[in-house]
Amino acid sequence: MDNVKVIIWGFGAMGSGMANMLLKKKGVEIVGVCDIDPNKVGKSMFEVLNAERNNHPEVILTNEIESIIQDTKADVALLCTDSFTKGAFPKIKLLVEHGLNVVSTAEEMSYPKAGSPELAEEINRLAKANNVTVLGTGINPGLMMDFLAIVLTGACEEVEEIECERVNNLSPFGPVVMEEQGVGITVEEFDRKTEEGTLAGHVGFAESIEMIADGIGWKLDGPITQSQEAIVSSVYRKAPFAEVEAGNVAGVRMLGQGMVDGQRKLNMIHPQQVEPQLEGVHTGDYIRIKGIPNIDMSITPEVPGGIGTIAMCVNMIPHVINARSGLKTMLDLPVPRAIMGDMRDLIEE
Amino acid sequence: MDNVKVIIWGFGAMGSGMANMLLKKKGVEIVGVCDIDPNKVGKSMFEVLNAERNNHPEVILTNEIESIIQDTKADVALLCTDSFTKGAFPKIKLLVEHGLNVVSTAEEMSYPKAGSPELAEEINRLAKANNVTVLGTGINPGLMMDFLAIVLTGACEEVEEIECERVNNLSPFGPVVMEEQGVGITVEEFDRKTEEGTLAGHVGFAESIEMIADGIGWKLDGPITQSQEAIVSSVYRKAPFAEVEAGNVAGVRMLGQGMVDGQRKLNMIHPQQVEPQLEGVHTGDYIRIKGIPNIDMSITPEVPGGIGTIAMCVNMIPHVINARSGLKTMLDLPVPRAIMGDMRDLIEE
Repeated sequence: MDNVKVIIWGFGAMGSGMANMLLKKKGVEIVGVCDIDPNKVGKSMFEVLNAERNNHPEVILTNEIESIIQDTKADVALLCTDSFTKGAFPKIKLLVEHGLNVVSTAEEMSYPKAGSPELAEEINRLAKANNVTVLGTGINPGLMMDFLAIVLTGACEEVEEIECERVNNLSPFGPVVMEEQGVGITVEEFDRKTEEGTLAGHVGFAESIEMIADGIGWKLDGPITQSQEAIVSSVYRKAPFAEVEAGNVAGVRMLGQGMVDGQRKLNMIHPQQVEPQLEGVHTGDYIRIKGIPNIDMSITPEVPGGIGTIAMCVNMIPHVINARSGLKTMLDLPVPRAIMGDMRDLIEE
Repeated sequence: MDNVKVIIWGFGAMGSGMANMLLKKKGVEIVGVCDIDPNKVGKSMFEVLNAERNNHPEVILTNEIESIIQDTKADVALLCTDSFTKGAFPKIKLLVEHGLNVVSTAEEMSYPKAGSPELAEEINRLAKANNVTVLGTGINPGLMMDFLAIVLTGACEEVEEIECERVNNLSPFGPVVMEEQGVGITVEEFDRKTEEGTLAGHVGFAESIEMIADGIGWKLDGPITQSQEAIVSSVYRKAPFAEVEAGNVAGVRMLGQGMVDGQRKLNMIHPQQVEPQLEGVHTGDYIRIKGIPNIDMSITPEVPGGIGTIAMCVNMIPHVINARSGLKTMLDLPVPRAIMGDMRDLIEE
């Protein structure tokens, strides 16, 4: 059997991280990389990654996805370009219409019917018509604040309430994330941007809450509620891509709630900040289920966001190739798992 | 659509617990119960459960499984009679040949190729020939020391080592479990029984270790190693079905290891005892993954074994009905999840 052939579209931190991971795996090869950054286009992927080529085939970065699609007979595309379904949609459409399975990192794509039900239906229709599968996944949404909670409810006779908390460290992230989360700005600026709606914060609460509700059969009373507040630092903090004066914003604490039967049964708590340890904050992922039985789970420190998203997307490739056609979510496919053997062994003929 | 129709075969703690759970669920009904206990045969299931019948159809316990199969058009049988594949096999064969999907609580059935590869193949052949699905599951093996670890590796680029520890409280269990685990006996008796091989201990390490290895693509170097030692109590302990004098056995500490590439990469640690809190032991489920990244998970206290197994078996019913035919494991099916809505909504037409 041939190696599994992968295209990567979007070669930022996520796309290039997936490339590094794939280069260490057996039975899979990268056949094309698309990116719009003029500093990368025309260069060898190995140069951009600062990695040894060894026996891998050469891959030259291009900004022309059509040429990659036509020149390679890829099995799957890893789409690492967008956070929102609307932005990812035309790219997914193009890939699907050329017979490619797609794994998307777009947070909204982890449960696209939450934010874009019409586009979700259209993606499902297109995927079925072209006999391919589309999946959105990542560490969050995708695992820590939704899928893992659902797995744990598998041991429950009854569920009354689910709380997911993810306390994470933003320090490893780059300047884009610092800006999106308001790291380093004043509280006044934070409040102004929050009012304007120009502070992205975490994208994914609607997706996580709807995935859990649908997963266990709860009907949400209405749209989820969501709020964000500044995490004001009482000390000076310095991260590779941010500096926070005491009194300024070290990150953002996001809250989300879903109502079921008139009660707040789904709670999301997600404080993200740089250098949390400077104020004694311990990072971690927490899932608390009230039910029969109660389940109280902790993962400390938190599963890191970058590696986690990279791993989830790569590890789901075999399931996406094997699945029946259509738009899928993590609820539909067998569970994610590390791939320590040959990826070809996981592909059903 | 009709209610999902369920037969329960074996009406001990697990079977009757599943009945109690099913009676609270929508879109599903119990159509027959088989048990060999002469004190139960001929009685109403509701009398045996000490439960209100309400609008549920009457079910009279019988020891004749054939009559249940013929009189009811059930979708699935919950088989709660055995721990070992060999004992469960003739019952599974009978059910499958009558067109019934099967969920088995037998610990070995959670990954039957580990202990009985020929029977596993035969079950797979029979299930396919009769267009039904067979699954073994439970809390452990089935979730806490295998499947959940596999899910967490989904966030890993690389895995070097996996350790699963389950520290649980045996106090809620009945006299059979007390005897199987050697609770209350002297250390001499424990050692003698261990040497004779008449102390059951935990059944499932081979299944858990092979499920993880196959799941993430590790090749085991050979058969797993397994050992057990007495948990000697330094204090007097009393549980509903056991009494332990200081100096005697409060439970059994089981260890299991799987070797990969000459290294002990899979470690199972499972101390089970009554009243662990009397010596300051905190119960819990722990999964420690060494890899990229490391993942350190705790669930405290442990997910209780009885409720957990009951819930896992019932919650997997829709996935088993929906699956393609054959012998399946937790690795093949979508993830378990609580069923808080109508079970019929989960059945694909």
